[in-house]
Amino acid sequence: MPASPFDHPHLSGLLGDAEIAALFSAEAEMREMLRFETELARAESAEGVIPAEAAERIGEVLAGFSPDAEGLKAGVAQDGLVIPELVRQLRKAVGGDDAVHVHFGATSQDVIDTSLAIRLVGVCDIFDRRLSGLVEDLTALERRDGGTEVMAHTRMQAAIPVTAARKIRSWRDPLERHRERLPAVRDGVAVLHFAGAAGTLEKLGGKGEAVSTRLAEALHLTAIDHPRHSERDGIAEFASWLSVVTGSLGKMGQDIALAAQSEVGEIRLGSGGGSSAMPHKVNPVGAEALVTLARFNATLVSGMHHAMVHENERSGAAWTLEWMLLPQMTIACGAALSTAAKLVANISFKARDASA
Amino acid sequence: MPASPFDHPHLSGLLGDAEIAALFSAEAEMREMLRFETELARAESAEGVIPAEAAERIGEVLAGFSPDAEGLKAGVAQDGLVIPELVRQLRKAVGGDDAVHVHFGATSQDVIDTSLAIRLVGVCDIFDRRLSGLVEDLTALERRDGGTEVMAHTRMQAAIPVTAARKIRSWRDPLERHRERLPAVRDGVAVLHFAGAAGTLEKLGGKGEAVSTRLAEALHLTAIDHPRHSERDGIAEFASWLSVVTGSLGKMGQDIALAAQSEVGEIRLGSGGGSSAMPHKVNPVGAEALVTLARFNATLVSGMHHAMVHENERSGAAWTLEWMLLPQMTIACGAALSTAAKLVANISFKARDASA
Amino acid sequence: MPASPFDHPHLSGLLGDAEIAALFSAEAEMREMLRFETELARAESAEGVIPAEAAERIGEVLAGFSPDAEGLKAGVAQDGLVIPELVRQLRKAVGGDDAVHVHFGATSQDVIDTSLAIRLVGVCDIFDRRLSGLVEDLTALERRDGGTEVMAHTRMQAAIPVTAARKIRSWRDPLERHRERLPAVRDGVAVLHFAGAAGTLEKLGGKGEAVSTRLAEALHLTAIDHPRHSERDGIAEFASWLSVVTGSLGKMGQDIALAAQSEVGEIRLGSGGGSSAMPHKVNPVGAEALVTLARFNATLVSGMHHAMVHENERSGAAWTLEWMLLPQMTIACGAALSTAAKLVANISFKARDASA
Amino acid sequence: MPASPFDHPHLSGLLGDAEIAALFSAEAEMREMLRFETELARAESAEGVIPAEAAERIGEVLAGFSPDAEGLKAGVAQDGLVIPELVRQLRKAVGGDDAVHVHFGATSQDVIDTSLAIRLVGVCDIFDRRLSGLVEDLTALERRDGGTEVMAHTRMQAAIPVTAARKIRSWRDPLERHRERLPAVRDGVAVLHFAGAAGTLEKLGGKGEAVSTRLAEALHLTAIDHPRHSERDGIAEFASWLSVVTGSLGKMGQDIALAAQSEVGEIRLGSGGGSSAMPHKVNPVGAEALVTLARFNATLVSGMHHAMVHENERSGAAWTLEWMLLPQMTIACGAALSTAAKLVANISFKARDASA
Repeated sequence: MPASPFDHPHLSGLLGDAEIAALFSAEAEMREMLRFETELARAESAEGVIPAEAAERIGEVLAGFSPDAEGLKAGVAQDGLVIPELVRQLRKAVGGDDAVHVHFGATSQDVIDTSLAIRLVGVCDIFDRRLSGLVEDLTALERRDGGTEVMAHTRMQAAIPVTAARKIRSWRDPLERHRERLPAVRDGVAVLHFAGAAGTLEKLGGKGEAVSTRLAEALHLTAIDHPRHSERDGIAEFASWLSVVTGSLGKMGQDIALAAQSEVGEIRLGSGGGSSAMPHKVNPVGAEALVTLARFNATLVSGMHHAMVHENERSGAAWTLEWMLLPQMTIACGAALSTAAKLVANISFKARDASA
Repeated sequence: MPASPFDHPHLSGLLGDAEIAALFSAEAEMREMLRFETELARAESAEGVIPAEAAERIGEVLAGFSPDAEGLKAGVAQDGLVIPELVRQLRKAVGGDDAVHVHFGATSQDVIDTSLAIRLVGVCDIFDRRLSGLVEDLTALERRDGGTEVMAHTRMQAAIPVTAARKIRSWRDPLERHRERLPAVRDGVAVLHFAGAAGTLEKLGGKGEAVSTRLAEALHLTAIDHPRHSERDGIAEFASWLSVVTGSLGKMGQDIALAAQSEVGEIRLGSGGGSSAMPHKVNPVGAEALVTLARFNATLVSGMHHAMVHENERSGAAWTLEWMLLPQMTIACGAALSTAAKLVANISFKARDASA
Repeated sequence: MPASPFDHPHLSGLLGDAEIAALFSAEAEMREMLRFETELARAESAEGVIPAEAAERIGEVLAGFSPDAEGLKAGVAQDGLVIPELVRQLRKAVGGDDAVHVHFGATSQDVIDTSLAIRLVGVCDIFDRRLSGLVEDLTALERRDGGTEVMAHTRMQAAIPVTAARKIRSWRDPLERHRERLPAVRDGVAVLHFAGAAGTLEKLGGKGEAVSTRLAEALHLTAIDHPRHSERDGIAEFASWLSVVTGSLGKMGQDIALAAQSEVGEIRLGSGGGSSAMPHKVNPVGAEALVTLARFNATLVSGMHHAMVHENERSGAAWTLEWMLLPQMTIACGAALSTAAKLVANISFKARDASA
Repeated sequence: MPASPFDHPHLSGLLGDAEIAALFSAEAEMREMLRFETELARAESAEGVIPAEAAERIGEVLAGFSPDAEGLKAGVAQDGLVIPELVRQLRKAVGGDDAVHVHFGATSQDVIDTSLAIRLVGVCDIFDRRLSGLVEDLTALERRDGGTEVMAHTRMQAAIPVTAARKIRSWRDPLERHRERLPAVRDGVAVLHFAGAAGTLEKLGGKGEAVSTRLAEALHLTAIDHPRHSERDGIAEFASWLSVVTGSLGKMGQDIALAAQSEVGEIRLGSGGGSSAMPHKVNPVGAEALVTLARFNATLVSGMHHAMVHENERSGAAWTLEWMLLPQMTIACGAALSTAAKLVANISFKARDASA
């Protein structure tokens, strides 16, 4: 039952991105949550907070753990998030005296936000690669077609002729800037969330910082000295970056759709979409999809900014809103990047007919 | 791989709505698309546009038709929508001379928009019932707790005492108005889309109107004399209604979360969400979810209004944007209605402690 | 110091609407607030709530009242709204024993929301007239140019030829539906807000309803038996209607800009915008402005839906958000309606060059 | 006739920011446009593109130039932007043979976008100072009240006690990060736009780059080797930053409003808003305004992202949308920063009553 095209059996062919969607699957989410709990136990044992055998036992059990999905669903319905029920299941699976050492000192948001952070780091790496590839593709397109003379258009009217290179650079340059901005954006999300119930790690005695440092290292995240549970600027910046990237690609899509109009014909589509009623048409499907995805993210980014009004130490309402928006925005950006790559490979500039 | 909580194995426990989601499943969508094609053949045969045997054969084949999902996915990737490939598959399944009579005179948007219209009518019926039930629940709550004296709050400060009835009515009255508005909203979407490639039904000779009337009757939709493919006001009005309903419920959720604060205690939750770190807490999970869903729809409604800028006779970009937003908005409204019903059953007003 | 183009000395030439803006001036707002206070005193005196002489004196003083603007500004900075300071000024101006009868039993929101209601009724009347005029203009355009053959475009590609009448109807029909929806939308805002501090009119003894009825009649609004201070559905529906109207006009603008492209030339602009660098150009300025205004309102409507999450009996935060959005949305819709009228008068359809 | 509270004679007391609004006045806009034209002439003369006397004459005339406002308004209505008419007026004022050297080689967007860039640099400097001041204020607040024990709240429920310092840091740390991000955001907008009609500076012969370098230096902006007229990422990033800053302040406002609730009383407001009906109240007006401003910018930022879909070499529609949104967003952010400073000076933390 797909609520969104990303999960839809056929619409995902147009709008989906399997590689990014995989990072937002329930499985990937669970995998990184279990990794958090495993590494937490290990770090706490290294610092003498919990017994070494407990950490070992937890590591073994969690490695083979398979959650009771129905129980988790009921747990979320009851608690608003999955962790209380998951911890119950994990403690039951570990059993005996070691059970109490599972999730020791942590709170729900530590697990969920850190699981997300790990996966967003993965997203950043993929997007960096894709942006880099797309820049190369556009450079190759410029090399091949850049000399073609086309018409510049301002305010929907023919202005004066320019080279195709001029257009291609206006698509490529922003992508290079987005890549340059990416490390700062990545830093804003690549953060270990480990702070306990109210951000004080009160259960760890004086060992909070040491455990935090070990845990961050194990998860390749940054340890911070002050919890950011309620500080959502990193995540809002990330969402803004997603939307800005998608917006730049939407501009490229819009330009291509306009240049490929029957009456303009300055860009030729190698292949295009067919029509059920008009077989002669070559529709600029990929170009239109870029516009759609840009407007989709431009719409959703607003909700991510609203979610910054995160009341007190933890907001159920604002935090849950992020869950409803961020995965989709990320997949939309991914879909735009892969659609753009296919599109660039599929277009060629065509000199204007001088007689026209 | 769930991009949205509505499809998520456990988050759907909190944010999902199985009844509404079922209407937006790929299966339901396909079922109504096939119904369109079947009834179209029947209506065209009744008007002598296609042979009676063709309509019969089409009806038989489509009744047992099961699409090649991979083919549809590839088709959408190519064409931007499913119909060209679906029609190819249907024609192949029908075979022989009758194949050409499948989808005769129709265009992609006829099928997709009509399939949606049929399902939105179903949604309206469900929401009408739910609104009516919720109004009754609130009336019962007023009957039971309405006399309790609670504090009115303006600008986040205690103002003067009022009865709980006053609060309950401010939740219920808007829902009654939403019900009153529903028939007009329903009329705006309960429309048969049947116009052919460019809105002229040019292939049907003079039979366009007669076929249209028959088809509309068979599908319980309104026949219109002028195609509305590019006129998206009905769908935008529907989306606005969804968001306004969700907004009213979000206000109720916000009020309940505020009244259930530990320090206020004017509303008691029969049961609430637990915490992985603080077992003593009773979290107002349902109330928060109503706020989340309200802000989700308030965010997405913007994109539905942007999608009204639907260029020319059919916009790939704007139309696809609707597909990405409307199903989610509808499920979010459904989830808000069912969450609200559970919440109302779970709260009781408690008189203020006079000594406080 | 104009924060918005609507107030800008030259941008208002493109994007402004003097007639609608006048209804949102501080002067108009104040005029209707004073009218509320005057008619309130009159109604209360008729019902014996305050002395007849007090009502008379209040009426006289308010008729000539000119507020101390600096004082009001300081008052808003302090109180978050203008009424406490305004009432202070009014009571001082009335003076003596009658002073206490000013604003008797009312609360800030009564005055502000009712002043808005009165002006929104005026807006509805203007918009009804403008929609009706625009429908007539489009009918005249159809009569003159409807027979011209132009190309239908789907997904940004030439499809098959249609008459211009087909396009014109797709612009006009939604406007007719918007007019039909207007009375219901108007009813949702044409409401007297008079409920006192917490919605109970507690200071009026048993006379609340009678005063309310008289006051509503005097102000040509509907009296309601339950205060709607915190129920914002009427205002959100109004905002949605504004945005949907603007969206339909944006679609028309987009179509005209596309048809007026140099390479398409199916619509000729009588006059268009000039360029500082390219004197040969005829820019479709009005058509573009319609797209801009549509996207502006599609953006802002989201905030009006967020503002429905209006906590408790009165939300400072949510209510103030409406003040920041609704006037602009209304002016934008007005500007779109008047821009559309000028644009329709300025275009003519041109048959496609058969040799092209 | 104020369409927005920022320009409203009394609402600007609550929501305005005179210092920032001054940078978006028509006067400031014109001043920097004239500065562009003056410095352009100077740079072109230094590079021998226009005669030295022409540059001198232009400098003199523009220094004392006062535009015909009605003419500009009519020009914008006609051309969609002010430059064609402004250049006509400037050339007329300069007169004689030098007239043709005004605006030589430039296009409308060069002037408008550069005038904006100059002013956004000014905004960045002011916001940097304000953020720095606010961080200091919060540090002082922490020093004074940080040791007070207050209750942490998660999901709208009391959790466990923490120090006020914990809360204060969750407000301050994001502001420090926003300051760190500011230079990169500033770089994205501090760009000279000078490219001519279609981005090629075709009229300057080989002198384009040299003139560009001189002009950028004179205006304290960065010269770029490729025009960015249609690349709106810098401006969208700036808008996102504004909204994220406002969002962080909205979170602080929400926290303060919650802590200042009558029933919670953990924050005391030195002074607060009064009520026209309930003189005993102390309303958290500034705190609520922060929430309002956050939601305002979270709403508008969406439109700035939509405006990235900037078709071809210049979009009238998308560009004009920026004009309608960005000034307001900037003033809203400014108002939030100054409101926050006043609010922080006005609050004190109060230990929880142990007996409660």
